[in-house]
Amino acid sequence: MRNIKLVLEYDGTNYHGWQTQPNLPTIQGTVEEALTQLTKTPIQIIGAGRTDTGVHAEGQVANFHTNLSIPQVAFQKGLNTLLPRDIVVCSVTEVDADFHARFSAISRRYRYTILNRTYPSAILRRTAYFYPVPIDVALVNAICQSIIGKWDFSSFQKTGSDRLNPVCEIFETCCWKAEEYVYFEIEANSFLRGMVRAIVGTILKCIKHVNGNMENICDRFHSILEAKDRALAGPSVPAHGLSLIRVEYNN
Amino acid sequence: MRNIKLVLEYDGTNYHGWQTQPNLPTIQGTVEEALTQLTKTPIQIIGAGRTDTGVHAEGQVANFHTNLSIPQVAFQKGLNTLLPRDIVVCSVTEVDADFHARFSAISRRYRYTILNRTYPSAILRRTAYFYPVPIDVALVNAICQSIIGKWDFSSFQKTGSDRLNPVCEIFETCCWKAEEYVYFEIEANSFLRGMVRAIVGTILKCIKHVNGNMENICDRFHSILEAKDRALAGPSVPAHGLSLIRVEYNN
Repeated sequence: MRNIKLVLEYDGTNYHGWQTQPNLPTIQGTVEEALTQLTKTPIQIIGAGRTDTGVHAEGQVANFHTNLSIPQVAFQKGLNTLLPRDIVVCSVTEVDADFHARFSAISRRYRYTILNRTYPSAILRRTAYFYPVPIDVALVNAICQSIIGKWDFSSFQKTGSDRLNPVCEIFETCCWKAEEYVYFEIEANSFLRGMVRAIVGTILKCIKHVNGNMENICDRFHSILEAKDRALAGPSVPAHGLSLIRVEYNN
Repeated sequence: MRNIKLVLEYDGTNYHGWQTQPNLPTIQGTVEEALTQLTKTPIQIIGAGRTDTGVHAEGQVANFHTNLSIPQVAFQKGLNTLLPRDIVVCSVTEVDADFHARFSAISRRYRYTILNRTYPSAILRRTAYFYPVPIDVALVNAICQSIIGKWDFSSFQKTGSDRLNPVCEIFETCCWKAEEYVYFEIEANSFLRGMVRAIVGTILKCIKHVNGNMENICDRFHSILEAKDRALAGPSVPAHGLSLIRVEYNN
């Protein structure tokens, strides 16, 4: 059986997240519907990351199995014709039989976009979180550097999540400003549910009342991290600023 | 009477252009409605550029007169609360009595955004025109350089327009590529109706069948310009790639 890998871009505004749910529009459900229409056979896809309601993706990865001999380029063109305009197939490649979009992934990278000026944006209102308090990027980067490595992220897990192992390994994280936008990127082997939004919300909470003292700021963040208590972390920033930008695999 | 200048950003997707029309949502109509709600008096605004249906703005300018003593910052906050999220007031300033958003303007600058890759974008589908044929930016820039100055742009005027003087002075125009996007910017004292979209469409038509011969490409474009005949120009590119990014005034 052929194993087909898809890279997907989507605007999550109008979807109840990645995962199929009865009677609700989801990314997975919509892509499966288009695949079924294209191939005339029911097809289930496996996604690399289960993005939440309203979260976007520029590089979500999914795979599915099929016996059909449709060429890769025809899969892409066909799907992009059938899919609504807010979901796009960026690439289609045939991969080894044992490739699994979720379990073969060695890292995921997310970007959180903040519009950091005194008035909101009309044009980017769906993809950037409007936050008018000036952000000191150097302070954010001090926290970013301090969380590289393996940590128990229980404090940043959505309440009610059932994941057994709350330890994630952070490979890279950074923050930068470009014009009036502040970008925060984080790459890890895996993420707990709601983790990126809780981390960004906690960083914003930590830096809000500190006067440029970097040691203090990292202590503050780490005391929350070490407490393993969601109640101590800051409120999550909204979903619409978040995008799954890349998933990495060996080979 | 106070004369108030507004700078506006808007996502034109859901509007029938700038200018008020009966029973159709327009930017001018929506801003006037919010102003009337805020001030409890009917207020008419004057816009610098009458953007067409679906065209966006990052720096549209408008002005209006009022006797009310509402502070500038209260105007901005109040309007941004009352306006739908796809129209935003970027700034409010009090200006001289003789300031007129349209007649005092010395130049307008537009940007046209093209997504130049083999598949469309889900996230930027409302603000970038998807054009998969690779664009040679050097060729576009050769044309850009050749149209600086005063020209009769009749060939690029929307059929049925009634403007008496079809001569516009181009101050600056340039094209550049960033990742998979090609940007085209043009600044002039004024523009004919549909002019930017017709120029971009004609440039794309001209460079499509030329093999890097810059002299040839400029000749081709100028023979269309000099003919003063809309029928010879290329088809207009769609409205959603266009944005009015700046309007300049003396002082």
